Amino acid sequence: MSKRLTLVLGGVRAGKSRHAQALAQAGQRVLVVATSEAGDAEMAARIQAHRAERPAHWDTLEEPLDLVTALAPRLPNYDTVLLDCLTLWVSNRLLSPPDAGQDPRDISAEAHRLLRLYEQGDASWIVVSNEVGLGVIPANELARAYADELGRVNQVFAAAADDVTVMFAGVPVNINALSSDGTR
Amino acid sequence: MSKRLTLVLGGVRAGKSRHAQALAQAGQRVLVVATSEAGDAEMAARIQAHRAERPAHWDTLEEPLDLVTALAPRLPNYDTVLLDCLTLWVSNRLLSPPDAGQDPRDISAEAHRLLRLYEQGDASWIVVSNEVGLGVIPANELARAYADELGRVNQVFAAAADDVTVMFAGVPVNINALSSDGTR
Amino acid sequence: MSKRLTLVLGGVRAGKSRHAQALAQAGQRVLVVATSEAGDAEMAARIQAHRAERPAHWDTLEEPLDLVTALAPRLPNYDTVLLDCLTLWVSNRLLSPPDAGQDPRDISAEAHRLLRLYEQGDASWIVVSNEVGLGVIPANELARAYADELGRVNQVFAAAADDVTVMFAGVPVNINALSSDGTR
Repeated sequence: MSKRLTLVLGGVRAGKSRHAQALAQAGQRVLVVATSEAGDAEMAARIQAHRAERPAHWDTLEEPLDLVTALAPRLPNYDTVLLDCLTLWVSNRLLSPPDAGQDPRDISAEAHRLLRLYEQGDASWIVVSNEVGLGVIPANELARAYADELGRVNQVFAAAADDVTVMFAGVPVNINALSSDGTR
Repeated sequence: MSKRLTLVLGGVRAGKSRHAQALAQAGQRVLVVATSEAGDAEMAARIQAHRAERPAHWDTLEEPLDLVTALAPRLPNYDTVLLDCLTLWVSNRLLSPPDAGQDPRDISAEAHRLLRLYEQGDASWIVVSNEVGLGVIPANELARAYADELGRVNQVFAAAADDVTVMFAGVPVNINALSSDGTR
Repeated sequence: MSKRLTLVLGGVRAGKSRHAQALAQAGQRVLVVATSEAGDAEMAARIQAHRAERPAHWDTLEEPLDLVTALAPRLPNYDTVLLDCLTLWVSNRLLSPPDAGQDPRDISAEAHRLLRLYEQGDASWIVVSNEVGLGVIPANELARAYADELGRVNQVFAAAADDVTVMFAGVPVNINALSSDGTR
């Protein structure tokens, strides 16, 4: 079976993680890449709830920022990567102070490096992300920058994905299969 | 004709109510369950506009909170229930003070009780709700709780629905018919 | 070849403009109608980026408010109109002070006049707009009015359009082709 890149998009509480986990069940050796940080009690509870839903034999890598560095050496051990989610990764990088060597805010370039990692390996990836651009555009400058960055990153993965699934109220819709547009 | 559960999802001004009303025209004895409260002039005007669009022979039940209690005794008189909408019902319950007997904020459990009412009866239900999770996630804690609760309630009804229709700019898209995903 | 009305809907950074431009490539004489105003540096940069992506031989009409007046005399010279976007046009009109002769906030009526201009001419129109109603409904009254007005305008164009395309992460989905609903 050849590898496959799947992007699972959707809003808050749309069943993205559950659907992504159901897809990952097809894998033998599954690595969950969790990008969330348990900064407060609410987030800690969300992380714990997500973890409880996953099979016990799956491995988990927690990395909020440097996905490429953390993931590259581990990749050969797995046939399936479940990356949950791009949303928090973009948020974490956007809010990080730029360090000497590298600007953590250079997010699109890092998204392309991450995609190259997928392309060079043998594992299937299931990547979860939020769509956040369909509400009233926030007056807040950081929120606008966030929606822009995340939208760009989602496009990077969607353009390369075999399947792009949008979740509505728990119902998965594979829009790549529906898109018959000749301009793409 | 057997009964049918339809969930009509969509954003603000997407034509949800108009579409739901068009679907309800197939019924002989139609009960509209309105969950809105005319708390201010803007809302009163919206309620009035919605009512003017409906056929005069439809009955209307106005109930902002206790849908199960209010609906159960009336159900045998109707073959079609148009519930418009879950959005305000969740909002009304979330903002209600917990009383002695029952916590009005226990919304998911009440959604399941409501669904059981549908399952036990003979009427078709057309249920309207907003999708609110596709914008930038609000910093406000109550707004986040609201998006979470409504998302959960939408999933409860979507999982049981024969048709899940998402409205975009007045165009209905039946996503259950599109969803060919084997994991569901 | 007969003319065609296409509405390209989507969120922030979903690839709407790029997709609309790809569709407009089929035209011989293309007029871009840009509704944005370079009010600040961020907007000026967005306008410049959009312009750099377009073929040099396309003409551009910049008009933030009076689309009908500005467009009518120019229409006979073009076979393709790319209107990008309704979002900012609605926002510009909503924020304009009412003048003596005409209330710039009477937006739905103006949308219908604009649509009549399309119907009377020979050119194909590709119309770009945002969907902004799928986030948590803003507490701010102006933001709610904006979501309402834009939703109404989108419905005016969607009801008349040959194709309604919703963009998700750069993937176009033609929902008119998917909508098999008999009530529409």
